[in-house]
Order: sequence, then structure tokens, then C-alpha cells
Amino acid sequence: MTESVWTQPITKVEPDKVAVRGYRIDELMGQTPFSHVVFLVLKGNLPTEAEGRVMDAILVSSIDHGGTPPSALAARTVASGGAPLTTAIAAGVMTVNRYHGGAIEGCMRVLHEAVHRQREQGCDALTAARSLVAEFRERRERIPGFGHRIHTHDPRAAKLFAIAAEEGIAGAHVDMGYAIQQVMTDILGKTLPMNVDGAIAALLCEMAFPPEMGNGIFAIARTVGLTAHVFDEIVNQRPMRRISPTAQAYDGPEERELPG
Amino acid sequence: MTESVWTQPITKVEPDKVAVRGYRIDELMGQTPFSHVVFLVLKGNLPTEAEGRVMDAILVSSIDHGGTPPSALAARTVASGGAPLTTAIAAGVMTVNRYHGGAIEGCMRVLHEAVHRQREQGCDALTAARSLVAEFRERRERIPGFGHRIHTHDPRAAKLFAIAAEEGIAGAHVDMGYAIQQVMTDILGKTLPMNVDGAIAALLCEMAFPPEMGNGIFAIARTVGLTAHVFDEIVNQRPMRRISPTAQAYDGPEERELPG
Amino acid sequence: MTESVWTQPITKVEPDKVAVRGYRIDELMGQTPFSHVVFLVLKGNLPTEAEGRVMDAILVSSIDHGGTPPSALAARTVASGGAPLTTAIAAGVMTVNRYHGGAIEGCMRVLHEAVHRQREQGCDALTAARSLVAEFRERRERIPGFGHRIHTHDPRAAKLFAIAAEEGIAGAHVDMGYAIQQVMTDILGKTLPMNVDGAIAALLCEMAFPPEMGNGIFAIARTVGLTAHVFDEIVNQRPMRRISPTAQAYDGPEERELPG
Amino acid sequence: MTESVWTQPITKVEPDKVAVRGYRIDELMGQTPFSHVVFLVLKGNLPTEAEGRVMDAILVSSIDHGGTPPSALAARTVASGGAPLTTAIAAGVMTVNRYHGGAIEGCMRVLHEAVHRQREQGCDALTAARSLVAEFRERRERIPGFGHRIHTHDPRAAKLFAIAAEEGIAGAHVDMGYAIQQVMTDILGKTLPMNVDGAIAALLCEMAFPPEMGNGIFAIARTVGLTAHVFDEIVNQRPMRRISPTAQAYDGPEERELPG
Repeated sequence: MTESVWTQPITKVEPDKVAVRGYRIDELMGQTPFSHVVFLVLKGNLPTEAEGRVMDAILVSSIDHGGTPPSALAARTVASGGAPLTTAIAAGVMTVNRYHGGAIEGCMRVLHEAVHRQREQGCDALTAARSLVAEFRERRERIPGFGHRIHTHDPRAAKLFAIAAEEGIAGAHVDMGYAIQQVMTDILGKTLPMNVDGAIAALLCEMAFPPEMGNGIFAIARTVGLTAHVFDEIVNQRPMRRISPTAQAYDGPEERELPG
Repeated sequence: MTESVWTQPITKVEPDKVAVRGYRIDELMGQTPFSHVVFLVLKGNLPTEAEGRVMDAILVSSIDHGGTPPSALAARTVASGGAPLTTAIAAGVMTVNRYHGGAIEGCMRVLHEAVHRQREQGCDALTAARSLVAEFRERRERIPGFGHRIHTHDPRAAKLFAIAAEEGIAGAHVDMGYAIQQVMTDILGKTLPMNVDGAIAALLCEMAFPPEMGNGIFAIARTVGLTAHVFDEIVNQRPMRRISPTAQAYDGPEERELPG
Repeated sequence: MTESVWTQPITKVEPDKVAVRGYRIDELMGQTPFSHVVFLVLKGNLPTEAEGRVMDAILVSSIDHGGTPPSALAARTVASGGAPLTTAIAAGVMTVNRYHGGAIEGCMRVLHEAVHRQREQGCDALTAARSLVAEFRERRERIPGFGHRIHTHDPRAAKLFAIAAEEGIAGAHVDMGYAIQQVMTDILGKTLPMNVDGAIAALLCEMAFPPEMGNGIFAIARTVGLTAHVFDEIVNQRPMRRISPTAQAYDGPEERELPG
Repeated sequence: MTESVWTQPITKVEPDKVAVRGYRIDELMGQTPFSHVVFLVLKGNLPTEAEGRVMDAILVSSIDHGGTPPSALAARTVASGGAPLTTAIAAGVMTVNRYHGGAIEGCMRVLHEAVHRQREQGCDALTAARSLVAEFRERRERIPGFGHRIHTHDPRAAKLFAIAAEEGIAGAHVDMGYAIQQVMTDILGKTLPMNVDGAIAALLCEMAFPPEMGNGIFAIARTVGLTAHVFDEIVNQRPMRRISPTAQAYDGPEERELPG
């Protein structure tokens, strides 16, 4: 039976040569930071220095969030049944979906739509934000990327916006995020700030990532934390234990300063 | 029903504060490269600049290897059934196990054991390597981390060793890798070089990672490539197609130079 | 930290007692066939003898389809990386989604909608089928559950309808399936028969299963075949082999008669 | 590129014909119970009526165990992140491993080894059991398949042994199970009965299943319960809820009698 050849545009492998998106991996190694190569592999082109720094900060921002997110709990639970490290990590990765991490994709769609309207209608950001917020309220839907069950002013969101501003990455989508925040705050009478998912969404929009990749970028970052959690579960916890999602505490090092 | 509190040492989450291994994430962002934070989250301490550069190169080296590895094929196959992005990525992650990526862990165990013997017996690396290679040959087992089905001189392995040497990271485990390579070459009458798994193994040993984390570090890097493959499958390929593991070609950009 | 109690309606476990949907498992064992208990666990009530026989035949019909479906290929590929039996089976289960097995759910929705219209409008099945087929053709969508890439007259579909007729289970949804088949055949000038997914869909509708459970029932049956495939892969195939989706053959026993 | 053909011995698929292990599926449907076809697909031959009834009872015995097993918790947790039905079921399947369900395989190995010794040494079951128990105690290991954290006299185990006795399936491996139980009870001064895993193990040994298939058979049965749990989670619970492994209750139907 003959088969037609299928193609992929990501990596070329030849004897003694591996090149991602046209760049030899051995030339990238030691010269281009991993987070920039992540950008390259996902998008097809190297980031600018500014984009690279923003991408790096996005990945750091999502690297872990302790033992309570469902991805960490699923991964630890699978490990407690005796599955190997990568099986348990995978269980965590598949937990990242519509409700867990999914606000990034959802918020990217909202920002795209709102900026599209702003441009179509030649109006300002606040006007576009108002009409879109009104529609969400009519449908009784929450706008993804705003508010958080734990954090009222998420320091990770603030830092992402600060870095984006420093690097000149912030544009219409970041402005629209602030406009929606303003509209929501006016309506609710209290601040409903963008959370870290919203901030990531705005910056991924600015760097022209497609919304469908939102969960992928979150999963890449969180795989690191999941690996640490699964390793801890296998090494330090007993099999088949009952893993409470609430009766948890942190017992790692005290808060410490970054070395100068 | 009361539950006893369980603890994890990775991330502390409080309202408006998230700290990994004691460092606030918002302080790490924009200042400490993602690959260094990967090291931090996995090991519990920040890397030195030298360790950070080696870790970064390890992650870049494993980021993708085209469409033929079983992890990429499993991920694309699951996507072709209609599963969402993260489910398909997870299928790729769980394919990383004893035979796929697992040579890192296997080679780390070999290097640990050989260096341990060298120290116990006060002998030189070649002597320890000879006794260990003899045992593998008697059991008719391959030593993991040497040779490759595609690459005879893997440029990624060579570059990892070069960076490790530059950074002063190479020590007894790298020496032992070379010693085993020498012994194998003498026996076979042709070079059987360390492959990229072997090189990663040697460097992870030098940085005191436990062998059990080998698959995890490989999975973290490869999740990036898997995300690109699954996204490509969902966007550019038709559902339920027959994905040949061999009738493949690369159709991305031509080889290009890194910008100065 | 106090937690509110959550509840599930499936299984009650007390010391020395396990009861599913109210029936003690040890009383079901040896008396109620497994396929009937599958019906019970999924639906909450025991099937009639007729429903039980139909459910049993549905499960048998979907138990395996050789080495070419993406679920079998994903499961074997994950196994070839060295993952344990259940990890590889799981990779097959997650491949069952919109395009693989998903026609059951899709066809159930079509049949529900068409029967709903028939009842709303007081028309006959053919009239309702014609309006629904016209809409699909206008949207250039295929109606799920009709036609097959390999089988023109799927013997499994025919047998399911025969058993349903014998058992008096066939009703409005089966009739609607035939009506749609008739309309499609008139339009295309050749028979486009219901396939096994369509037949399962019609019978699950008759037994009042929700469409969302379609993939679940298919997955339950196919887990059996996946287990056999993964076991075969682990025991009889070499690791990291390239698993062609097309260059396959069957080497099991010749066709044989069921014992009288 | 030419590929060598690979073979599988499970299912032959031709246009309008599907046969498992040599038997046409459409002939099996409606005639051979699903549990017997499970036996056929896994083992390669149809069961006797006695074996079929035992296999059916084994599958019913393991169909669900409420919301506390790690497989149910992992599946529900993945579902709560927004993953589709089959992804969440898969997470449950992969949780079945060494510590969860794995006692079946472990106990099968113990019974095989003990019966092997009995035959080699021409001794009685109690003598072989004593030497094997002594070795486990010396290594401070638990013998898998004995005792349970909830049930002291598991009614499922008792029923399995009763059915096996009725059907004339019980032989040397069941006897050895009782012998080990006797030895353990003598040592501990209180009964340490075989649990349901141990009973399944003994019966699978009698029917000549390989130990490596233990987790597969358990996973096949439990996939049913997992499907019900995931469906309940998606339909009746809110996303991203914190799923306590302990603060649970059953709210299904009261205990009821099987209809005559």
C-alpha cells in the first residue's frame, strides 16, 4: 500500500543535523534563551528582544500555583496510584482546559473582538468596551480574565503590564484590557482588575499569537510545576493517600530576596 | 470528618502573593530567565550563572525532534480523533518513558554507579568504565546514552559538552562518559559516541539532579514541540487521517543563519 | 478548615457492603450480566431483558476494529515508548472524541431533533427527515452516522437493528434513521446506509440515554480491544518501532464458526 | 519509502466483515454475552460457560467503588478543569497502576510462585504458603491481595469464591490463596482475609490469564464507573470545585432488592 507523504513545518531532522523553524538547534543552544526558542517553535519566527523578554516573563508567571489547582491535584492523584512520573504530569496537562487556564484563550477572543469593533467603528476603546461588557451582562456571562478567587491585585498581572510597557509591547489590546476593567469598575462600584490570565491574554494578542494557543502556552509553563509536584508526591508522600484540596500548607523555604 | 494537613515545599500562595521556593514570582519575572526558574522549581535553589546557562542549553536541545518520535505521533493521533489541544499534548508527554527519553535516567544511573565505583576503589575513570562495560556486555544490555539511530555525531551532544566546559561545569561524570565512550570504541573498533541523552545525563549528574527527574526535564522541553505539532495537526491537517511514521517530510523555512 | 460534603449518586460503600445504584454488588454478581450492570451504573436503573440484550449487543459491536483506528494506534504508540499498560490504554480512550466514535453522539442529536420536529409538527418521519437533510446540505455538513470508509453495508448495524426489532425496542428514532437513509438515498441515487455508529445512536435514543454519554459507551466497549492491543504491543513488538497505520495485516486465527 | 507490514492477532477487518479472534462480530452479537467476548478478545479463545460466568462476576465486582478511589478523584478533577468526557475517563484509567488495582497482578505473581514451589517440591499448599509468607515478612513486605482499608470481610470476594466453586473453576491457586490466609491468620492471631483483588487474582490464575493483564481487566470494569462519575461531574457539579476525597456522601437510591 503506498502512502502519500505528509509534511510538518516545525523541525527538520537529517543525520547529524536538527533545525527548528530553519535554525540549527546546536547554534541556538547557549546563544538564544530557551524562552525565545519556545516563541520560535510556537510562532515560526524568532522574537525581538522585547518580545523575548515578555514571553519569558509570561512563562515564569505561570510556572506554578501551589497544590490547590486541579492540574496539581490530578497529577498528584494519578501518581499516588503508582503511575510513572510522565503519566502523572500528563494527567495535570490534560486538566488545563476550558475552566483551568482557559481564561487566557477566552480573554484573547474578547480582546480581539473588542479591538476589531473599535477599528471597524472608528470609536475609542472605552466605547467598544462598553458595548461588549453590556452584551456579556445581558447574557449573564463573566468576561474571562478579570477577577480571581484568591488575588484581588495579582502582582503577576501588574508585573507583566510593567514589563510590556518597558519593552514597548503594550498596544491596542492592553489598552482594551484597561478599558474593560474601567467599565467593569464603573458598573460594579469596585475595582475588578485583570488577573494574570487576562494580562497574559493581552500580551499574547500584542505578539499576534492565535487564541487557540493560549492553553498550550499555559501548559508549557505549568508542566514545570507539575513535574515538581509529581516528583514530590512520588518521593515524599505515601501511595494511595487522600489528597485534600483544602487542608494543605506550604513547608518550603521562607520568603527570601533575589541575589542582587 | 477531620483531615490532617499535608504539605508541599514548592509554592506558597497567599492573597496577592505567589512565591516559588521562597522567591516571589513577580520579582523573578523579567529578571531571572525562565530556564533558571525551571532549575529553581525542580531543584529548590537558584542556579549559578554557569548552571543556568547549561540548563538553558539542555532545554533547547530537547525542544523538538520532528514528526517521527512516538511522542509526536501519539499527540498528533489523539488530536486527529478530535481531542482538545492539551489532551493531545498530554498523550505525547505520557509517551516519554523508559524507551523514549528514558536513556537520560538510565545513563544517569550508569554514570552515578561508575563514578561511585571509581571513588570507592580509588581507581581511574577508564578502569571503572571497563568493569562496568564488561558487566553490560555480559548481560547483553546496551548502555543507555550511547549511539543514535539517526545521528552518528550528534551536534547537540557536542554543543552541550562545549558549553559545560566553557562554564566549568564538567567534572567526574562527564569524564566518565568519555571514558565509557573510549572503552566502547576500543571494543567495537569504531566510535560509539555519547548521544544527546547521554550528554544531558552527564550534565544533570554534574548539577546534582536525581536520575528520577530525567524524564521530567525531557518532558518539560518536549512539551513545547508537542504543542507546535498538535496545533499544526488541528489547524492544518484533516481529522482521522492516517499519520505515517515514515512517509514524512519537512516543509518549513529553509536553513537560515541566526541574526548576529 | 471545614469542607462541605459533596454527594454522588452512583455507589454506596460501607464496611463489608458495596451497592451500585441501590443494588448490592455481591447480589448482582453471578445473577445479572455485566452488560446489564453497565446499563444500571450509567442510567441508574436496571434494564428490561430486552434493553439488556440490546445493550449487550451494542457493547459487543464496538469491542474492537483492528489496528487502524486512531485509538489503537495512539495506545500502541504510547506503549512503544515504554509506558505501562493502563497509561497506554488511557491514551486510546482519550482519542475517542469528536471524529472517532463521536458520530454516535452527533447522530443521537440529529435523531432527537428530527423526532422532536416530527412530533411538534405532527408530520411523518420522511417529511421531518427531508427538512433536516436539506439543512445539512445547505450548510455542506455530513449527517453523522451514515456511510463508512470501509464498510458499505455494515453487518454490525444490520444485526443491531435486527436484535432491536426482535426485542421490540425499535421506535420513532429507528424509524427516523431509516427515513433519513431513504431521503439521502433518493438524493444521491445510491444507498447511503446507517453505519454502526448510527445504529448504536438510534438504539441509545430508544433506551433514553443522553447524547453526551455516546462517547462513554463507545469507550467502555473499546477499552477491551485497546487492552488486547496494548498487551500485544508490549509482549510481542519491539520498543520504539514505527507503527504504520496502513502497512498492517491480521495474523490471528482463521474465520471460525461459533460453537452451536 | 517502503514499510514492512506488521501484524496483530486480534481483529480482522474487511469490507462488510469484522471478526475478533476468528469469530464474526455480527454473529457474536445477541448470542455471546459481552463478558464472554471480553474473555475472547483478551485471551484468544471463547470461555467455557463456567469461565464465562466467572469472568462476568469478576467484571461486575470491580465496576465501581464510589467517589474515594484515586481513579474516580483524578477523573472528576480532570473533568472539573473542563476536559471532555473521554479525557477525564482516561485520567481515571491511568490512575490504575501499582497501588490502585495493582494488587491483582501482585497477588497473581505470588500465587503463581507459591503453586510453582508446591509442585516443584511436592509439598502441600500450607507448607509452600508458610515459606513464602516467611520471606515476605523477612523483607517487611505486605502480600498483595489480603486485607482492605474499609472491608474486613469483603462480600465481593466471598461471592467470587462461591461462584468459582459452583462452576468448578477453583483449583490450586484458590487453595493456595486460602492457605496463605490461614498462615497469615495463625501468625497475626486474627483473620486477614483475601480481599476482592486477591479473589480476582486467584480466579484469573485458574483461567490462565497472565499476571500482566490484571490491571487491564480491572481497568475494563472500572471504566464503567469512571464514565458514570465523569458524567455526573460534568452534568451536576460546578467547574473548578474542590473535590474532597473524604467529605463525601452517597445520595443515590436506597438499598433495594433485585427483582426476582
